[in-house]
Amino acid sequence: MEVSASTKYSVPRGFRDFPPEVTLLRKRIIGVIEGVFERYGFDPFETPVIEYWETLKGKYGEEVESKLLYRFQDPWSGEWLALRYDLTVPLARFVAGQALTLPFKRYHVGRVWRHERPQKGRYREFWQCDADIVGSPYPEADAEVIDVVCDVMESLGYSEFRVRLNDRRLLRGIFEEELNLSRYGEGKVLEVFRAIDKLEKIGRDGVEAELTRIGLGSSEVEKIMGVVDVSGNPEETLNELEAQFKENESVCTAVDHLKGVIDASSHKNNLTLDLSMVRGLDYYTGPIFEVYVEEPKIGALAGGGRYDDLIERYGGPRTPSTGVSVGLERIIDAGLELGLFNLERKTCTQVFVVSMDEKYWSYAHNVGRELRREGLKVQVDLMRRSYKKQLEYCEKKGINAIVFVGEKEASTGTVTIYFKDGKRRYEQVALNEAIKFLRQETY
Amino acid sequence: MEVSASTKYSVPRGFRDFPPEVTLLRKRIIGVIEGVFERYGFDPFETPVIEYWETLKGKYGEEVESKLLYRFQDPWSGEWLALRYDLTVPLARFVAGQALTLPFKRYHVGRVWRHERPQKGRYREFWQCDADIVGSPYPEADAEVIDVVCDVMESLGYSEFRVRLNDRRLLRGIFEEELNLSRYGEGKVLEVFRAIDKLEKIGRDGVEAELTRIGLGSSEVEKIMGVVDVSGNPEETLNELEAQFKENESVCTAVDHLKGVIDASSHKNNLTLDLSMVRGLDYYTGPIFEVYVEEPKIGALAGGGRYDDLIERYGGPRTPSTGVSVGLERIIDAGLELGLFNLERKTCTQVFVVSMDEKYWSYAHNVGRELRREGLKVQVDLMRRSYKKQLEYCEKKGINAIVFVGEKEASTGTVTIYFKDGKRRYEQVALNEAIKFLRQETY
Repeated sequence: MEVSASTKYSVPRGFRDFPPEVTLLRKRIIGVIEGVFERYGFDPFETPVIEYWETLKGKYGEEVESKLLYRFQDPWSGEWLALRYDLTVPLARFVAGQALTLPFKRYHVGRVWRHERPQKGRYREFWQCDADIVGSPYPEADAEVIDVVCDVMESLGYSEFRVRLNDRRLLRGIFEEELNLSRYGEGKVLEVFRAIDKLEKIGRDGVEAELTRIGLGSSEVEKIMGVVDVSGNPEETLNELEAQFKENESVCTAVDHLKGVIDASSHKNNLTLDLSMVRGLDYYTGPIFEVYVEEPKIGALAGGGRYDDLIERYGGPRTPSTGVSVGLERIIDAGLELGLFNLERKTCTQVFVVSMDEKYWSYAHNVGRELRREGLKVQVDLMRRSYKKQLEYCEKKGINAIVFVGEKEASTGTVTIYFKDGKRRYEQVALNEAIKFLRQETY
Repeated sequence: MEVSASTKYSVPRGFRDFPPEVTLLRKRIIGVIEGVFERYGFDPFETPVIEYWETLKGKYGEEVESKLLYRFQDPWSGEWLALRYDLTVPLARFVAGQALTLPFKRYHVGRVWRHERPQKGRYREFWQCDADIVGSPYPEADAEVIDVVCDVMESLGYSEFRVRLNDRRLLRGIFEEELNLSRYGEGKVLEVFRAIDKLEKIGRDGVEAELTRIGLGSSEVEKIMGVVDVSGNPEETLNELEAQFKENESVCTAVDHLKGVIDASSHKNNLTLDLSMVRGLDYYTGPIFEVYVEEPKIGALAGGGRYDDLIERYGGPRTPSTGVSVGLERIIDAGLELGLFNLERKTCTQVFVVSMDEKYWSYAHNVGRELRREGLKVQVDLMRRSYKKQLEYCEKKGINAIVFVGEKEASTGTVTIYFKDGKRRYEQVALNEAIKFLRQETY
């Protein structure tokens, strides 16, 4: 029995329904990610999907605020609200209002909303999986969140991936002190960061045009593009930067800190220093990083960094913090393309109890109850269908273990089991025997 | 190290942050509920939190639309959107647009929003845990969703609970044909249902006033209140109703169907027929039910019913469906009050590796890595604190297993373990030995 497709009702563009085969995969992947987070001692945490607009304002840059943030008025109070744009700002807002034992290590898997142009790996409603260490200013905390995301990648079967590493203080030091961008005023460096962040989207020419548009001269643009070109083995590159900018305090602080991060990391071989990787968000203050795979070309699968000032901005004391955000849809979309995951599993049901005739309905339901009591995932027909139709349903859903009940079984209190994969059949076995077989052969 | 509480930033009224001790409990309870759903062969499923206003319009009644539904305009397109009000309407919208294999048994645990007055067990952002059977018109499907919710209650430790059962056709038959309410027009019966639904909130007098307000005469009001008073053992009461209204087709259909439900249920003893229980939502067409505990007085913990017309209203073919919605916050709030649950567990961390001096930091981190590789949930100090401060942190978080590394341990490649609960101590044991102890004694 099929329902034909026909409806004028849909979900808004960039939003998605997740049918069971997709949700089963998503839940499995979220389980793996949460498992890694918990092994590092991060605890689960939740915030509302709605925040006061006031809370989000001024945290992400003007372009985000005007083009990407879902803002609306409470229909009753008229207060301005917004759908959360990330999970970091709500965390900072929460921490500022609490007396917490530090470090506060929390993870949060949840939806965020951005009014982006929908495309592969990019949706308007999507999931982030965040792990943050609130309270530690030390490089070993940055190293830990990088190790966490590397463990996530490995646990999901990604063998080839790069972590591009940078430090906002490195760029700020060079841009403000060497290029003297500070003479353009406080916010100019953030504007430059946002321009560089578009490198992959709009290319070198695009970034140069953007830098010119925001008022920089051609020699400044050239120098910025020269800095952005620096990338390579992190230790060597850091030593070179240190030698070149040894009088620049910001650069030296950043180099020291990054050396500490690399030293404490157990994934040194995955790290590349890349000065073109700046992250789009305004609130970063120290090390930043993004995780990439060579193929498919889908953008960063994860990213994060240090934000030592953010909690202060919500009225809390200065609380150095660092964290990582894993993009669930990109992890899934890339993994599907790479063949790491598939959507073959259609149901969690392990066993279907097929009733050969309506006379045995009640017996079939009793058998179903007994099997459930043993923890098995069991369906019994609810459609009053012939046993053939019941078998068709099992076929479509890919249910492997079929338990038949007919006259012989009902009269002897037994069942007959058939496993589709190995074509094994067990005739009229007692229920406790059946449970043993089913436990062994279901997954 | 504590962060002092001080902030002008908060979440909107009726919205909540969930710190780790709350989220740990919530995740455990959601796990139990999802476990029961899966044992009955329901598969996980997700929809966006935002729907087009058009999708929700006309499904819940006028009062809900004007007072409770979060409606807003898309800031860019100007389209009217809304936060979902329940999980049933999005399911119906989805099913109508798909060619699905039936029965489609899905579960969905997710947030919904209602602009209610916040109070105990009632929030503006809250979670529903829904299980629905799409495609079966038969009483055994209704019985299954009732069995599911009873299994959920029992699995969570609730020993005393009642399922109040009714059928919209029972009331409709009596109200329309016996009291001739149809002469007031199509929607009058729904208005009467909504008035009766407020019985617990506003009392008998309140309901009578409400019925008068919507235009019913005093003898009609009296007769309605007489019907509403019917409650008791379901089989007996159904037989009485059948005898009294044997010419009334709606009533007889409902009585037959309810007898089938009771017959197929494995939780007969929990059922009460209660004609005052009408459910507030407009879309129900057959059996309806709600789950209550005697104490605390917190309203229904779960409820559900049959909605055979809803999918049709989204352009799909007529697809009889039935389901249940478990109210997560009421389950938790009532369970906390009854002592079924507590918030004592502050962290999922099982092991803390205490470094006796900074000389052993690197060894401590290596030990942490090894333990994590074995699946243990492990923290290592990230704050460069003295071992005393590290122990204070463990104390505050309630971490039971402490792994010490100092000079002796580092030089011999061993660790010393201390379990706080049993005060057991194992000096300088090899790491593989340590893993065995930790596996046995952590939870």
